[in-house]
Amino acid sequence: MPSYSAPVKDLQFVLHDLLHLSATPVPGYEEMDRETTEAILDEAGKLAVGILQPLNAVGDEEGCTLENGVVRTPEGFKEAYAALREGGWLSLDADPDYGGQGMPYVMETAAGELFASANISMAIYKGLTHGAVSALRAHGSEDQKATYLPKMIEGTWSGTMNLTEPHCGTDLGLIRTKAEPNADGSYAITGQKIWISGGEQDLTENIVHLVLAKLPDAPDGVKGISLFVVPKFLVKDDGSLGDRNAVSCGGLEKKMGIHGNATCVMNYDGATGWLVGEPHKGMRAMFTMMNEARLAVAVQGLALGEVAYQNAVGFAQDRLQGRAVTGSAAPDKPADPIIVHPDVRRNLLDQKSFLEGARAFSLWGATLIDAAHRTGDDEAEAMISLLIPVLKGFLTDKGFETTVLAQQTLGGSGFTREWGIEQFVRDARIAMIYEGTNGIQSLDLVGRKLGLNGGKTVMAFFEMVKTFIKENEGDEDLKRDFLDPLKSASKDLQAAAMYFMAEGTKNPNNALAGSYDFMHLFGYVAMGLMWARMAGAATSALANGASDTDFYEAKLATGRYYMARHMPATALHLARIETGAEPVMTLDAGQF
Amino acid sequence: MPSYSAPVKDLQFVLHDLLHLSATPVPGYEEMDRETTEAILDEAGKLAVGILQPLNAVGDEEGCTLENGVVRTPEGFKEAYAALREGGWLSLDADPDYGGQGMPYVMETAAGELFASANISMAIYKGLTHGAVSALRAHGSEDQKATYLPKMIEGTWSGTMNLTEPHCGTDLGLIRTKAEPNADGSYAITGQKIWISGGEQDLTENIVHLVLAKLPDAPDGVKGISLFVVPKFLVKDDGSLGDRNAVSCGGLEKKMGIHGNATCVMNYDGATGWLVGEPHKGMRAMFTMMNEARLAVAVQGLALGEVAYQNAVGFAQDRLQGRAVTGSAAPDKPADPIIVHPDVRRNLLDQKSFLEGARAFSLWGATLIDAAHRTGDDEAEAMISLLIPVLKGFLTDKGFETTVLAQQTLGGSGFTREWGIEQFVRDARIAMIYEGTNGIQSLDLVGRKLGLNGGKTVMAFFEMVKTFIKENEGDEDLKRDFLDPLKSASKDLQAAAMYFMAEGTKNPNNALAGSYDFMHLFGYVAMGLMWARMAGAATSALANGASDTDFYEAKLATGRYYMARHMPATALHLARIETGAEPVMTLDAGQF
Repeated sequence: MPSYSAPVKDLQFVLHDLLHLSATPVPGYEEMDRETTEAILDEAGKLAVGILQPLNAVGDEEGCTLENGVVRTPEGFKEAYAALREGGWLSLDADPDYGGQGMPYVMETAAGELFASANISMAIYKGLTHGAVSALRAHGSEDQKATYLPKMIEGTWSGTMNLTEPHCGTDLGLIRTKAEPNADGSYAITGQKIWISGGEQDLTENIVHLVLAKLPDAPDGVKGISLFVVPKFLVKDDGSLGDRNAVSCGGLEKKMGIHGNATCVMNYDGATGWLVGEPHKGMRAMFTMMNEARLAVAVQGLALGEVAYQNAVGFAQDRLQGRAVTGSAAPDKPADPIIVHPDVRRNLLDQKSFLEGARAFSLWGATLIDAAHRTGDDEAEAMISLLIPVLKGFLTDKGFETTVLAQQTLGGSGFTREWGIEQFVRDARIAMIYEGTNGIQSLDLVGRKLGLNGGKTVMAFFEMVKTFIKENEGDEDLKRDFLDPLKSASKDLQAAAMYFMAEGTKNPNNALAGSYDFMHLFGYVAMGLMWARMAGAATSALANGASDTDFYEAKLATGRYYMARHMPATALHLARIETGAEPVMTLDAGQF
Repeated sequence: MPSYSAPVKDLQFVLHDLLHLSATPVPGYEEMDRETTEAILDEAGKLAVGILQPLNAVGDEEGCTLENGVVRTPEGFKEAYAALREGGWLSLDADPDYGGQGMPYVMETAAGELFASANISMAIYKGLTHGAVSALRAHGSEDQKATYLPKMIEGTWSGTMNLTEPHCGTDLGLIRTKAEPNADGSYAITGQKIWISGGEQDLTENIVHLVLAKLPDAPDGVKGISLFVVPKFLVKDDGSLGDRNAVSCGGLEKKMGIHGNATCVMNYDGATGWLVGEPHKGMRAMFTMMNEARLAVAVQGLALGEVAYQNAVGFAQDRLQGRAVTGSAAPDKPADPIIVHPDVRRNLLDQKSFLEGARAFSLWGATLIDAAHRTGDDEAEAMISLLIPVLKGFLTDKGFETTVLAQQTLGGSGFTREWGIEQFVRDARIAMIYEGTNGIQSLDLVGRKLGLNGGKTVMAFFEMVKTFIKENEGDEDLKRDFLDPLKSASKDLQAAAMYFMAEGTKNPNNALAGSYDFMHLFGYVAMGLMWARMAGAATSALANGASDTDFYEAKLATGRYYMARHMPATALHLARIETGAEPVMTLDAGQF
């Protein structure tokens, strides 16, 4: 059975040594000093380790069941969800006007990593409700907000997002679910939605479905999609639950992983719903919550990598096989622990150096969201919009790879269910697919985000890298080990962007064929910037006489590993990008 | 439900256009003309598609069960195994002296790909018996060979390999299983073995276990390991089955994949066994069959990638989402098939270009084994020994990646069990682990194989690349698209080998820290050589007026894709290698 311990120290390092949370002029941040965030994260960690993690394998083994329309979540999930609710973890960053605690989103993100590491299936129930709350809060009427938000934030009701239909996922313009007006201003919703996480479950008293559907007069395509709120139980004027609505779970998907999360086929048979926001503007409402939802999925990639890594390290420190080639490390034992072997260390450092960089990247992203939401900082809003596809695509691709590497550390044990690592691999796989496949993320990056504000946002990113390098190149060690590789990688990224500009205008496929490589190239540069900043922070801490030299020196060594052994990948991605459309477009569809 | 069709045309291209099988001076090859191999592969394909593939999902869903010491394989497996037996597929390349058909090993390998694509769990039962036959044939006494080989080759008995124990896998020097001499010349074998594929099953009348154990006077470590043959049922002098031996299955492993294959805990409680070969020379017997066993696993990586790819292509050709950015490809439909999108093609071409190169690489490897075994060609023996860790490590790593890419092509459907792609991902994962983890392969390559014959073998490989380039650089297209990238990649490989020589002598960790990257670097160069050769063959075929221009042009375009977009990875691996030991060795074990 795998174990887990909350990486509070690493989170604290990022929040304070790197992001200087309480010194940042964002409302609410001033209260987030070291002691406060440590107390919050310690509590989240206790719940994650003590209650959620022990149910993780149970959830995988047992899965969810559907009987007579009722979905039963695995043994213990109901109680664990209640513990999340009672601990206030469902309302952490929610609007105080509706009963939330109003904390910064960065704290929701930090705590979210712990919950996702401990039990991803449970974390998804929580995450979907968070997204539905955000969408309703931004686009719902005052009446809708008063009706739904307090109960959802309190956690007695949950929320879902209903987008996909059997014939369309990515291309939502094709949806067929209909919304026909009733005399009383409500709508009758009819259609089938699939892959609805938590569409039905036994954790909450009511489920508030947000559903994309088409009005009778809707224009074709994505410009004709409207958003509706469709509660499982209709809500009476006094707020109590009324009749069962005509929405039901028609089946549960059997999946590779996240078995503890109910993935439902949802049938809407003239269910009563109410329009959220304006007619035909449903996609806009989706976009509102998209940055947060995609960042949360990025963190899932990191989170599953982290728990897999922890168990790989434990195995490598315990398992005795072979001898260190430079002389035994444990001559009194029949063999040395395998962590002495260079290739085992290479494997573990690939994991560790990614995870620590990814943690910084995702929490930085969360502070940009806070800045955008809490101070109306348009540049922060633009920057996070640019970075979101990189965060989602890169962190989930590499997070999955990390679980695979961790599994490899365990050899044959990694393939057995008993050791539990293989579950992390299966669970991590979905993060590359949902909330927009990573291919779609790369199109979003190259097709929309690169040109954001006439290219000013991506220029601001390059400027940020340049400025950091300039301000810090006086430190020779930092320059050689961190800034020089970062500069070189950033040049590759700029060259790729230039290539797209020059060649993409001639033929858009010249850009689109390289979109996936560009997303990864961007990921490395962002990770390199994070590592350079963390190295600067660790160097300062050591210079200032920090007592925990071991921690800061390990941070520097891990960063040097990433810069030396991973950053050179940017040249490869650039080389691929510069081959353009031809290699990709030559074959006819029938020649594959 | 996934489908599969046997890639006979591609296999034929490799066997004849590339490897010129029937013109090769290896005994048995002269009979292997196009018509003969096509007939063989068509028959193998029929069995794979008609009988094995339909049981693949059944095997995954049902798994194996253990009750009162009896293992039951999934519904239909027994009949399918009988079909393999009756079709002669268990004796294809076996020694005619013992009832085999004596065909070249390359045909066993080609047919093996089809069986592994169709049903990997079933293919493993077959493969283990093949390995046990090879070991017994090379090291068994005349009496042992006469007793076991005919029945094993006929397929009424199976074979297993018993190496791993709970506390040791890679480091076999630590094994504890004991072999104590009986008065009659047999031995009493006592100990526990784990992860024994097919250790117990209901497919065959008897199971012939080959077991590593230690004699009472055994020296410590791997030099004290002996090999024993331990049949499930003792064999009487007349060849009929006698008493049940004291060996039993103590449990079945629950695994991530290959559920249809019984992975057993085997308990030897004073079981009667007979020494195979000399005392304390058990490892030598293992090495005899290792090349074949590891090549077979390499082919599993390719095979699972192939079937996953085929289903990804089918999905991409059918699924309608979005429009081609350069103008609709199917204006009469609600959307275009997703194969019009550059990033979907990029994903599919990553798969296709790997698979076709890997098929050539593995079949070339098989011809080297034939040359070594059938003509006593020492250089072929040395070359395949050098290439085996590359084949096993690179093809299973990239084969697994290919299944993951294929799964991604399907989006959400790829994550559901219904579509069946996720099974290929789970099944492919084991190939990176068993028969020596890929980390161990990389150590074997750098630690043993590079220095083989004082480095002459690796020099012969470089010479082969150089000669091919020299002989073909008159063709300008071939030079630009294939030979130049191959030359550049080969230089990177040579530079890496030079680095190991120069720095590895100072500190072996300088070489070991780069072993995994070196294995991949070597893999790319070998794949580049295969693609360059295939491009030459396709160019010749077109020049000679081949009627199937579509096939050969697709071959060239696929090869150009690989050369342009994958070969540049060699520079990245070289850069990583040249960072040496320090980044990997700096952290203390406790700092991870």
